[in-house]
Amino acid sequence: MPPRGRQLEVTIALGGNAILRRGDHGTAEEQIDRVRATARALVHLIEKGDRILLTHGNGPQVGDILVQNEAAKDQVPQMPLDVCGAQSQGMIGYMLQQALRGELDAEGIDMPVVTVLTQVLVDRGDPAFRNPTKPVGPFYSAQESSRLSKSKGWAMAEDSGRGYRRVVPSPVPKDIVEKGTVARLFRAGVLVIAAGGGGIPVVGGRGRLRGVEAVLDKDRTASLLATTMKTKVLLILTDVDGVYLDYAGPRRRKLDALDVKACERYLRAGQFPPGSMGPKIESAVSFLKAGGVRAVIASLEEAEAALAGRAGTTITR
Amino acid sequence: MPPRGRQLEVTIALGGNAILRRGDHGTAEEQIDRVRATARALVHLIEKGDRILLTHGNGPQVGDILVQNEAAKDQVPQMPLDVCGAQSQGMIGYMLQQALRGELDAEGIDMPVVTVLTQVLVDRGDPAFRNPTKPVGPFYSAQESSRLSKSKGWAMAEDSGRGYRRVVPSPVPKDIVEKGTVARLFRAGVLVIAAGGGGIPVVGGRGRLRGVEAVLDKDRTASLLATTMKTKVLLILTDVDGVYLDYAGPRRRKLDALDVKACERYLRAGQFPPGSMGPKIESAVSFLKAGGVRAVIASLEEAEAALAGRAGTTITR
Repeated sequence: MPPRGRQLEVTIALGGNAILRRGDHGTAEEQIDRVRATARALVHLIEKGDRILLTHGNGPQVGDILVQNEAAKDQVPQMPLDVCGAQSQGMIGYMLQQALRGELDAEGIDMPVVTVLTQVLVDRGDPAFRNPTKPVGPFYSAQESSRLSKSKGWAMAEDSGRGYRRVVPSPVPKDIVEKGTVARLFRAGVLVIAAGGGGIPVVGGRGRLRGVEAVLDKDRTASLLATTMKTKVLLILTDVDGVYLDYAGPRRRKLDALDVKACERYLRAGQFPPGSMGPKIESAVSFLKAGGVRAVIASLEEAEAALAGRAGTTITR
Repeated sequence: MPPRGRQLEVTIALGGNAILRRGDHGTAEEQIDRVRATARALVHLIEKGDRILLTHGNGPQVGDILVQNEAAKDQVPQMPLDVCGAQSQGMIGYMLQQALRGELDAEGIDMPVVTVLTQVLVDRGDPAFRNPTKPVGPFYSAQESSRLSKSKGWAMAEDSGRGYRRVVPSPVPKDIVEKGTVARLFRAGVLVIAAGGGGIPVVGGRGRLRGVEAVLDKDRTASLLATTMKTKVLLILTDVDGVYLDYAGPRRRKLDALDVKACERYLRAGQFPPGSMGPKIESAVSFLKAGGVRAVIASLEEAEAALAGRAGTTITR
């Protein structure tokens, strides 16, 4: 029996820590345990009556797949990033789908769960393609790095003193290719997992799609997904309990509520670093500007309280 | 505009050669080329008015993923077979979905395409779990084989003079966990790709599913899918143009039509080897016994002629 209640439609973006935490080894058992705890928290929201559309990151998982591709390259052809991303959607979608099925059944909730393999259209002319910045895959020595740069045309960059890594473009997600199917299922009451890892980046529009060697920011794609599906709320779950000012300093303080103007002011002032809180705030802002009602940034543990306005940071127009 | 015509509902099981052929290296480019040709053939059927439900094998792809897992095992935890199977569903589903989208758009057919990540329930008590027979993953020396047998509890077997391989159970698929969603989408006119690689094998029933280290025969699962979705036809596409008697001998002859009784007689007589045509014939028979109208075994190139009864082998009750 589908539960009734506040019936809030929420797009939820799960951070990497919903699947794997810092310090984890990345075994399947660990990931499945983490995902079960995540599933319990999500099913709790469903019991309250919320209608969830789920998306998730894939950083550590696609990283591992790239390391495996590199290690076996003399035996098995290396797959391009789009194919590795598709593999990670299969892997993470499977774990989430199985854990959610189990938790829903345990609570007697008869709601289908499904992972929709999702391609996301990007613009060939996106400036990100001329300026690849996102490090992916294994670390290489300076020598290997220069060899790969020549042989494969990869852009390489020194990364945090640990060696060189391939850097790839992170273009802006423009359209969700499978949006019609996601909408159909979501409207029919199915718990949909979509656009994992920000979606598989493709170019070409109608007629001939093809994958590109790029990664998509999962929060940006979550914002696009929420806008496209017209959910009232975008909930970004991460490993901190909300948005802070002066996060790294001695006087850090949490913000309970923010409006778009304040977000933009703080972004300009450099309060939110590009690699972490920055894209989340930007995604919240673009969701609200496109018609969204409320964006919430919170920790997984406080998801329910955050949706009720009692935890996390709530951003409105 | 959805095309109109004979409106035959067909579950199609694509053999491995629809994605990769013997002698291919297995690069992404090759696979994408093969998949494009496959997509063209399938869209041709759709233009005739057929309603397709698609499933596919994953042998070479999951094999490559297992080799990559082995090669990187000192850097990245090895994933169990169910997770590797999920990865292969993501990978192959992505390629098929993208190629089909392209071909449909090129023909002006406005039909959504979607890959549904699919778990398939097996019985814990299936005798296959006591007798693992299906070789998977890389070859090992006798010494490595005995070490793996002790350290991981893997069953190992000598394989075709090339070394030792892990052997895993191939239990009978009993139920498709995501059948409700597949049915909903199929009935709504969506081109669904489901149960790739025979589906991800899980045990546990309602309440707590978990993956198992096993593989599912894709033709058996295709038969279950066709039965569950009540399509009139099951079309098994493979690399031969039909069913033969005395296939390996000098007097081999193709059969154009067969009934269930003849199938069972020939199966008993050992006409269809266990590793290749045997499971296809058995799957056809179980589909027909469960109410299916027609099973067809043919090559991808002759798919259309075979559905019209002009090629391949047609099996009826």
